[in-house]
Amino acid sequence: MEDSALEKIEMRPIGFVRRTSPNEDVRDRSLVSHIVLIRDLAQAVDGIEDWSHIYVVYWLNRVPRTEEPVLHFPNTEPESPPLGILATRAPIHPNPIGLTLVELIGREKNVLLVRGLDAYDGTPVLDIKPYPDWEQGRFLVVTEFRVPEWLTSIIKQ
Amino acid sequence: MEDSALEKIEMRPIGFVRRTSPNEDVRDRSLVSHIVLIRDLAQAVDGIEDWSHIYVVYWLNRVPRTEEPVLHFPNTEPESPPLGILATRAPIHPNPIGLTLVELIGREKNVLLVRGLDAYDGTPVLDIKPYPDWEQGRFLVVTEFRVPEWLTSIIKQ
Repeated sequence: MEDSALEKIEMRPIGFVRRTSPNEDVRDRSLVSHIVLIRDLAQAVDGIEDWSHIYVVYWLNRVPRTEEPVLHFPNTEPESPPLGILATRAPIHPNPIGLTLVELIGREKNVLLVRGLDAYDGTPVLDIKPYPDWEQGRFLVVTEFRVPEWLTSIIKQ
Repeated sequence: MEDSALEKIEMRPIGFVRRTSPNEDVRDRSLVSHIVLIRDLAQAVDGIEDWSHIYVVYWLNRVPRTEEPVLHFPNTEPESPPLGILATRAPIHPNPIGLTLVELIGREKNVLLVRGLDAYDGTPVLDIKPYPDWEQGRFLVVTEFRVPEWLTSIIKQ
């Protein structure tokens, strides 16, 4: 891979996450929060209320970016082998992008009300995408999948 | 929203999409392609082969970025109302980020073999995330959802 190909990519937030209280446990997926889009994008969400779920792509601005050792221990049994940071859903990534599939509860102009967004108050939002994706004649919803052993043991707890 | 909050966010590609042929129809989800990560990130995917599916977040570098009119007509019946660009899965977005859930077929060092990635040869990859997400005790897989009427009519065709 030539270094010349690794040019910087620049983005700007399309909005920000707003939570009722900064002390909320963002990992509690039952909680509701707001995505406040910049006002110029109010029309960009016309029709979004017809979808029940959307992906939110955001920027983990509190997470230190890492360029280095690429191993991470998931919070599980001590005998777990080290894992690549891209092989977990740990927030520490070369590009700390967050991705959460949330329930869209409502929309008022440039503000979306969502449930299940595990992002802090003030988090910059980069993009939103309706769920699910599709191809000719079918929705692309994956219900059969395989996950690592260490995750299965977490889920069983 | 204060302009001061809309600072630029910078990322670098973690790798690139490589396709067997540049003439392939990228919308054909049965096709297989490669994600070639930069060599320094080979270890970052240690253990990823235990997942059957991953999200690929990429940069639509061939899509013109739009700052403006935020309406888009999905390719459907003529009487469809105009839609906000964020209310479709159109590639034209303020930040042209691509997101596809793909099947992970194999991995060799820093190269992932995937099926279903609808991205052109040379597309910069920003992040990858194992599927699915989870919270305490359960996988977050959404099988019940609501979509707009115009999409239902496409899917029925």
